Amino acid sequence: MITEETLLNLFTETRRDTEKICSHLETEDYVVQPVVDVSPPKWHLGHTTWFFEEFVLKKYAEGYELFDDNSAFVFNSYYESVGEKVVRTDRGNLSRPTVAWVYEYRKYVTDAILEFFSKRKLNEEIKEVLEIGCHHEKQHQELLLTDIKYILGNNPLLPYYSGDFIENTVEENKREWIKIEEGIHETGHKGDSFSYDNERKRHKNYLQEFEISNQLVTNGEYLQFMEAGGYKDVLLWHAEGWDWIHSEDIIAPFYWHRKHNEWHQYTMQGLQKLDPEAPLSHISYYEAFAYAQWKGCRLPTEFEWEAASEKFDWGRRWEWTESAYSPYPGFKTAEGALGEYNGKFMVNQKVLRGGSVATSQNHTRNTYRNFFHPHLRWQFTGIRLAK
Amino acid sequence: MITEETLLNLFTETRRDTEKICSHLETEDYVVQPVVDVSPPKWHLGHTTWFFEEFVLKKYAEGYELFDDNSAFVFNSYYESVGEKVVRTDRGNLSRPTVAWVYEYRKYVTDAILEFFSKRKLNEEIKEVLEIGCHHEKQHQELLLTDIKYILGNNPLLPYYSGDFIENTVEENKREWIKIEEGIHETGHKGDSFSYDNERKRHKNYLQEFEISNQLVTNGEYLQFMEAGGYKDVLLWHAEGWDWIHSEDIIAPFYWHRKHNEWHQYTMQGLQKLDPEAPLSHISYYEAFAYAQWKGCRLPTEFEWEAASEKFDWGRRWEWTESAYSPYPGFKTAEGALGEYNGKFMVNQKVLRGGSVATSQNHTRNTYRNFFHPHLRWQFTGIRLAK
Amino acid sequence: MITEETLLNLFTETRRDTEKICSHLETEDYVVQPVVDVSPPKWHLGHTTWFFEEFVLKKYAEGYELFDDNSAFVFNSYYESVGEKVVRTDRGNLSRPTVAWVYEYRKYVTDAILEFFSKRKLNEEIKEVLEIGCHHEKQHQELLLTDIKYILGNNPLLPYYSGDFIENTVEENKREWIKIEEGIHETGHKGDSFSYDNERKRHKNYLQEFEISNQLVTNGEYLQFMEAGGYKDVLLWHAEGWDWIHSEDIIAPFYWHRKHNEWHQYTMQGLQKLDPEAPLSHISYYEAFAYAQWKGCRLPTEFEWEAASEKFDWGRRWEWTESAYSPYPGFKTAEGALGEYNGKFMVNQKVLRGGSVATSQNHTRNTYRNFFHPHLRWQFTGIRLAK
Amino acid sequence: MITEETLLNLFTETRRDTEKICSHLETEDYVVQPVVDVSPPKWHLGHTTWFFEEFVLKKYAEGYELFDDNSAFVFNSYYESVGEKVVRTDRGNLSRPTVAWVYEYRKYVTDAILEFFSKRKLNEEIKEVLEIGCHHEKQHQELLLTDIKYILGNNPLLPYYSGDFIENTVEENKREWIKIEEGIHETGHKGDSFSYDNERKRHKNYLQEFEISNQLVTNGEYLQFMEAGGYKDVLLWHAEGWDWIHSEDIIAPFYWHRKHNEWHQYTMQGLQKLDPEAPLSHISYYEAFAYAQWKGCRLPTEFEWEAASEKFDWGRRWEWTESAYSPYPGFKTAEGALGEYNGKFMVNQKVLRGGSVATSQNHTRNTYRNFFHPHLRWQFTGIRLAK
Repeated sequence: MITEETLLNLFTETRRDTEKICSHLETEDYVVQPVVDVSPPKWHLGHTTWFFEEFVLKKYAEGYELFDDNSAFVFNSYYESVGEKVVRTDRGNLSRPTVAWVYEYRKYVTDAILEFFSKRKLNEEIKEVLEIGCHHEKQHQELLLTDIKYILGNNPLLPYYSGDFIENTVEENKREWIKIEEGIHETGHKGDSFSYDNERKRHKNYLQEFEISNQLVTNGEYLQFMEAGGYKDVLLWHAEGWDWIHSEDIIAPFYWHRKHNEWHQYTMQGLQKLDPEAPLSHISYYEAFAYAQWKGCRLPTEFEWEAASEKFDWGRRWEWTESAYSPYPGFKTAEGALGEYNGKFMVNQKVLRGGSVATSQNHTRNTYRNFFHPHLRWQFTGIRLAK
Repeated sequence: MITEETLLNLFTETRRDTEKICSHLETEDYVVQPVVDVSPPKWHLGHTTWFFEEFVLKKYAEGYELFDDNSAFVFNSYYESVGEKVVRTDRGNLSRPTVAWVYEYRKYVTDAILEFFSKRKLNEEIKEVLEIGCHHEKQHQELLLTDIKYILGNNPLLPYYSGDFIENTVEENKREWIKIEEGIHETGHKGDSFSYDNERKRHKNYLQEFEISNQLVTNGEYLQFMEAGGYKDVLLWHAEGWDWIHSEDIIAPFYWHRKHNEWHQYTMQGLQKLDPEAPLSHISYYEAFAYAQWKGCRLPTEFEWEAASEKFDWGRRWEWTESAYSPYPGFKTAEGALGEYNGKFMVNQKVLRGGSVATSQNHTRNTYRNFFHPHLRWQFTGIRLAK
Repeated sequence: MITEETLLNLFTETRRDTEKICSHLETEDYVVQPVVDVSPPKWHLGHTTWFFEEFVLKKYAEGYELFDDNSAFVFNSYYESVGEKVVRTDRGNLSRPTVAWVYEYRKYVTDAILEFFSKRKLNEEIKEVLEIGCHHEKQHQELLLTDIKYILGNNPLLPYYSGDFIENTVEENKREWIKIEEGIHETGHKGDSFSYDNERKRHKNYLQEFEISNQLVTNGEYLQFMEAGGYKDVLLWHAEGWDWIHSEDIIAPFYWHRKHNEWHQYTMQGLQKLDPEAPLSHISYYEAFAYAQWKGCRLPTEFEWEAASEKFDWGRRWEWTESAYSPYPGFKTAEGALGEYNGKFMVNQKVLRGGSVATSQNHTRNTYRNFFHPHLRWQFTGIRLAK
Repeated sequence: MITEETLLNLFTETRRDTEKICSHLETEDYVVQPVVDVSPPKWHLGHTTWFFEEFVLKKYAEGYELFDDNSAFVFNSYYESVGEKVVRTDRGNLSRPTVAWVYEYRKYVTDAILEFFSKRKLNEEIKEVLEIGCHHEKQHQELLLTDIKYILGNNPLLPYYSGDFIENTVEENKREWIKIEEGIHETGHKGDSFSYDNERKRHKNYLQEFEISNQLVTNGEYLQFMEAGGYKDVLLWHAEGWDWIHSEDIIAPFYWHRKHNEWHQYTMQGLQKLDPEAPLSHISYYEAFAYAQWKGCRLPTEFEWEAASEKFDWGRRWEWTESAYSPYPGFKTAEGALGEYNGKFMVNQKVLRGGSVATSQNHTRNTYRNFFHPHLRWQFTGIRLAK
């Protein structure tokens, strides 16, 4: 189990990092919600704070007074069993509470938790919730970055965010296929360090022999697919993917812009010429699948990915797998509100493995299961081929 | 024609008043657009400024340099012939340009217009456009107030705006029917003071004898209609009105809230107990019509209203009329972009006459024709009965 | 008042004509509803029958037994005060009752009405309802024809209906402008022959001097508008018309098809080459307005149209007017269910005057007010210019 | 490989059975499409015929003349690479070709295939396509039955179809849990009898120990879930399931009606009192999952189901599994148009195993993988619990 000191450091660093991400924003950037899957930064700041207030302070901190009676109402998320939530599509309509108020709320709760640490010895139950709260906030740090990119990248002015955030780092090593032998492989989290319920319990899987690439697909390779008419060949696509590219007029990855007859890409440093060597990003599962079909390959399953993960360098892109998001054998939903965390999303979503340039440090691991609907593109998603 | 001095005063006062309305806002309030008919205050500030830049400075001020090349793109409205507009539903997604930027833009253009005044004698053509620009901005002052009310009044915190804005003033005089004789009456703007193209030209109408109330319908009277089952009697409603109240779950005027078993009303001073003596507000044409049916009366036509308007005191509420918004005989669309101003909306809208507590001083007159779709309720709309 | 003998003839002929229209159909054609504004022919047959059962037989025919308890439920239309209606969009989902059943229902009710005639002297009240029932069915005869054209004309096989129905008859006389003097003109139905409540009461209108064309706009003239870029010039269109042509991809009148580089038109005799001399048909109010703008003319108001109607030959096309559908002075909704007939549609619709090739004989007159939403095109609508 | 004689019998019997299913219909029943997932019976008849014309006669039968040039256009389905398809939502708008025409088309093609059999020795390639064509038509036989149930069961008259089709047969044996040992189990089709590409290739899976019920959940058991508030407890549902029951107002299985305070069920013999002993039917995956949660159990994976399938009696209901529809290791899409058959649907769907009272004889097997979106209920779907 995590020590109290490590936990305190984790908490302090997490709270600080969240605010650092927002330090490049204007007040107005905190408020808007251009699309339902993106949340206003103000909401992320409040929601991660509400989590500590709701699940730690209200429950364990004697004499704690709520910062404001309305915060639960406004900053609750999908935890339907705790209280009435603000419908996600409405989050971008709320000018109040103000950004300044949200920062006061953060400080109030952060201080209360620090005081809580200083006053008593924490038992395992409390430490577990606090640790989940930190990892929960780290998840939101990644969403903050991708939501900010969406908010700025869909503004006609295409603003600059910060030079510190580097998206596109080229993989320099030699491209190779890694072969994995047929047989029983273990899947799932091992040991007692932190993991989510959906990574457990570790169990055996029988895999057929397969090969997996040691590198991500690059922008240049994907361009070849585009230029070969990949978006126009119905045989490469799922039926729903084909409908989706037509109803949404998809002809290229998200954030790609054709300008002066050349492909550009919106990055956190504004619009830049496309780097053909950099790993492809911001594509849907549908596009990942179609690309793989075109190459005569396929996407790995999450079990294959995990079995091979120590043999390649990952972490630049969340990598689409062929696996649907389902419970592992023996998966049990936790009791109470925290139990809503993962299980309720286990339908109609695809698993992504790895982590991305936007993932918080030490947040991911090779058993981590991220998941999104197959059409979503605002995360730093990529492709690693298998065959 | 207006003198240069009067025009200068009008311009200075108009630009100042717009900013005064916004002085009670937080930065976040300027940004959101909770519904398509409401625009973010930031947009109103920019759009009224863009109007002067586009139609005065760009055209007549030699050597004028645009504040920013993108302003036309962002702050254009429905003037499709001038440039690509930002789709109205997208206005609430734009965090940039910032509020501070918009205020700089305002100052830059205001100063440029003032310099323009100081440097040359203005001819009639320029004075006309400048005067339209001021009246255009006064129109947006009213929209600013009603949009702010919507933004705050749909926030679960129901914030206080300012004590200066008084919505509900009771009519104290004795209630009476005013009778108007059958015969030819003149309709439309007379004289050469400012008016919009849609108020012209003055022309003859033959009216049957009719009676019109000297007072607006009150909250208390409307409550009787509600309590008598007005919202449940299909025979009182237009077919489209009936569909509308059911698809939108309408059971009371907008901003009415049932709390502790009593009706309250959101006002610019927050939630208040309903005043039964105050004039009813925030109802749709459909509701106005159904109420009139229930009373065995009807709504006046705009011609009747105008013919009788000097015999009663008006100006608290925009008053729904039975008249559809159509061109007067001989109406001609102006040449060029300004010609898009009014004519293009002359379908599927109902005329409202009068003016409201949110109307800028000296902005309305008894020939002024306001118009909205029959379901809209966020303006200070009311009912005056005829028979 | 109508005599009993005339009424009997009217009834017999009306019932017969409805079935004659359907005699060219296959069973399958009776069932489908390709779009919400079109009803399945089976429904028209049942609904016009239900009208006589509900408002005559149930009320006045002693001992009458309903053909089936479900008929009111299935064949009621907009008469919400009589019983639960089948939602209009669901009409095309109902395979039962069968077409054969509906014909039996018709025969049963027709026979019952004939027996009713034979047994007793009819008082004025009953005669009035019977006469309305006949005119109601005649209205549905026109809808039957236009709905059948829609059902067949939107089938990829473009089937032939019948050679008896001629749509396109050229106006041979010389084109001229008819001038009408300024002054008071009377509008509305005169005398005690049949008319609808919305044509009454006759009243005075003051009209400015105007001119109106003695002919309808032809296909060839409209083609010039199209070739001059009429669908691409935003300044010619209402804002809502402009949105409509873009959301619906409208580039030509309804039923026009470009084939082998030439314009064709679907008619009741299948696809035919466009006749440039024939009167234009199947255009929306938005298109009629835009065409008139382009010609530097306008559409007449319904009052102008009526005042001039004896000076030109009309009846080929329903002619869009500039007038919104509103009550005449003194209009009163009838008591009870029949009162729902007209008044409840008096919002968001435009008046059409005249009549069309699909109108039943003797059904229309120069005071008849037809009305449709401004985007609808499946009727035989046309344009007569004014200025 | 199948012998020519067996194949001929299979073909003859399949074509006959399809028409037998339709023999209870009225002409009108063949035409309508009340919801997008249901196709008009006329379309099924034509589409299964088109399959033989397109993939056998056009390709292999020398001198074959198409019955009609338009049939491919109208009766193609999802085979986007063969020709322009009629959008599925439009199928219910087409009154032509008529039902009589479709039967002639069937006879023409059936005769041509029989002649084809009689004239030449069939090679393996042709036999394979013919066999697929028969199995394809058998699949459509099941859809015909469920679509007919939908068409009749959503008609307010709730018509009787036929007494021959029995839906509700009680399982009489003793309820027990079947235990399956942990270890490697084989999944997928074995041998060279007919199977679909998605059942292949047979491969090893490592399964944990589990238990599975020898019986389906009954109506009575599901009623207990309903009466215990199962539809109101958010913790039992997937987030998307919860949204779905609310947006669609789901409070009971499909075809259940509350009448005179008792639950009834629409069956092919009309409305009947609910039999609590009969196996539950017409529930979505969301409901199956929520029920299993409530019981403290879960749904089996498709691999578990297959491993245990020889130990229980299945075939009354298609049984929802927890498995998402994905390719087996080594799955390859077939070349050309037939390759569109299965692979393109492998996203966002859940696998169902077993077969139902509507499944054609000898059509299913314990490796057969059916699949539907998780919200669909018009098939005879049921629940078998695992733990």
